[in-house]
Amino acid sequence: MNRIQALFGIRWPIIQAGMIWCSGWELASAVSNAGGLGIIGAGSMYPEVLRDQILKCQAATDRPFAVNVPLIYPSVEEHMQTIMELGVPIVFSSAGNPSKWTPSLQAKGIRVVHVVSSVKFALKAEAAGVDAVVAEGFEAGGHNGREETTTLCLVPAVVDAVKIPVIAAGGIHDGRTTLAAFALGAEGVQIGSRFVATSESSAHRAFKDRIVDATEGETLLRLKDLTPVRLLDNPFAQQVAAAEDAGVGEDALRELLGRGRAKKGMFEGDLIEGELEIGQVSGQINQIQPASAIVEELVLAYQSLTTGMVDPHFQW
Amino acid sequence: MNRIQALFGIRWPIIQAGMIWCSGWELASAVSNAGGLGIIGAGSMYPEVLRDQILKCQAATDRPFAVNVPLIYPSVEEHMQTIMELGVPIVFSSAGNPSKWTPSLQAKGIRVVHVVSSVKFALKAEAAGVDAVVAEGFEAGGHNGREETTTLCLVPAVVDAVKIPVIAAGGIHDGRTTLAAFALGAEGVQIGSRFVATSESSAHRAFKDRIVDATEGETLLRLKDLTPVRLLDNPFAQQVAAAEDAGVGEDALRELLGRGRAKKGMFEGDLIEGELEIGQVSGQINQIQPASAIVEELVLAYQSLTTGMVDPHFQW
Repeated sequence: MNRIQALFGIRWPIIQAGMIWCSGWELASAVSNAGGLGIIGAGSMYPEVLRDQILKCQAATDRPFAVNVPLIYPSVEEHMQTIMELGVPIVFSSAGNPSKWTPSLQAKGIRVVHVVSSVKFALKAEAAGVDAVVAEGFEAGGHNGREETTTLCLVPAVVDAVKIPVIAAGGIHDGRTTLAAFALGAEGVQIGSRFVATSESSAHRAFKDRIVDATEGETLLRLKDLTPVRLLDNPFAQQVAAAEDAGVGEDALRELLGRGRAKKGMFEGDLIEGELEIGQVSGQINQIQPASAIVEELVLAYQSLTTGMVDPHFQW
Repeated sequence: MNRIQALFGIRWPIIQAGMIWCSGWELASAVSNAGGLGIIGAGSMYPEVLRDQILKCQAATDRPFAVNVPLIYPSVEEHMQTIMELGVPIVFSSAGNPSKWTPSLQAKGIRVVHVVSSVKFALKAEAAGVDAVVAEGFEAGGHNGREETTTLCLVPAVVDAVKIPVIAAGGIHDGRTTLAAFALGAEGVQIGSRFVATSESSAHRAFKDRIVDATEGETLLRLKDLTPVRLLDNPFAQQVAAAEDAGVGEDALRELLGRGRAKKGMFEGDLIEGELEIGQVSGQINQIQPASAIVEELVLAYQSLTTGMVDPHFQW
């Protein structure tokens, strides 16, 4: 048992990323019931929705689960009150400064993990007292760091820089990439894209099918002048690219983006006008499965690789 | 012994990347003498210089070495004639279509490896008959693919797509990252940046010192409208960034780039006006070493990790 398994009280150090519009109580409880850590993504939820989701998740599993809270969202105060009131055991915070909320959450016995995209932010998170960090690389879907450091370069750099345990994210989807993350020094993996393509994910079926169809090279980092975000290619992403190439400026980009684009694409299944946030590994995802099948397959593949280090492939 | 070791006749499946202005006969022979595969980077050499470099390399080592030839360079025809005439055993080709030269090189008993940045190009290279491919990710220094696929996402995708052996490149510099590459299915690693920071590299000492000083996040992919290239931050890179942000267009970028920028930066040590091509791992490189010390350290670290898979870190 490593530090991540011990910290969360989970059997497998496999964490399902908290993702807007895709990870409600059904996905989170399925992953937790399979022995991993499920996360409810609060970033797309009104306060009353999050409360309802937590209650449903608690009814569906006795295992630990977490809530992901982007710290720059307007409802942070109400979200954190709900989390503390309902006794959620673990919070993953992202996109903001973890020093404000970490002490009060920890005072209630809640474990706090912060998502970072650079060594600099990892050191700040450690100084803020978080229990662990997620080091998320450039290949990850959705919001992304400005340094563009990839998982392969970021994880060893963060592992060398901090004393707290490190969870790797970005590009991880199977036993091979999980072993790669552990080779780099990570003690857990956070997997997003592959868990979107599950029967329990709240993503629209059309978005799940689009992920299955996606090929390598079909996502690109966009909106770097606002907040960098990795998008799957579609007419909306092409409009964004054209506007960026034309140098239209931040206000015009904000107007083009408008409101509700991510909901429209990922939750309502509008593949033309909607924003489709997904990682580079979407090119490697070829089926929609139950979340538990992914956890099982990944654990078996990982164990086969590690016990198979006597395999000639690993012996020079 | 895996397919890459057998293909090249080398002890360790560690390949030193052929790099303009940095990898002449001194570096290539040092790596080959240490049991890896050294590569002379012909991209910055006139035909008579390459001939001289090959003869010196042959005098300095009895082990196999290779020459890297970017296929879009003007002297390709003369370079290939020299390579065949002097009996260089291995060619790494890049930046172009491998179908033209592969058959005639192979007819002379020369092994041919092509560098690719996407699954699509890997399949084309395999169809052209090359003996192996280098799958080089977004984090690599210098010229780079348009798809921006990272090593962690690219290597498993290429391994799944082709039957020939795959060498991983981009972000690899130590035992941890080498094991990660092998976990992804690679049978060899190609390492560039770290071999620039060696006593035998022909890079200017000022550039080597700048690499040692570099921190995570200090390189970015630039010149995407011409040929994407990863540059270390300096006044020249900032000028390029400003011009790109201002949307000046291809002609103005070409004029800003001018001629001889890479030589000025990497070979002559002009850290202000020169172009400094290096990978994201420069943030993890902290000393200038002999090339043989890097090979030895990497092999020991790798073997310690693989025999240490009984280590609790790898056992869930």
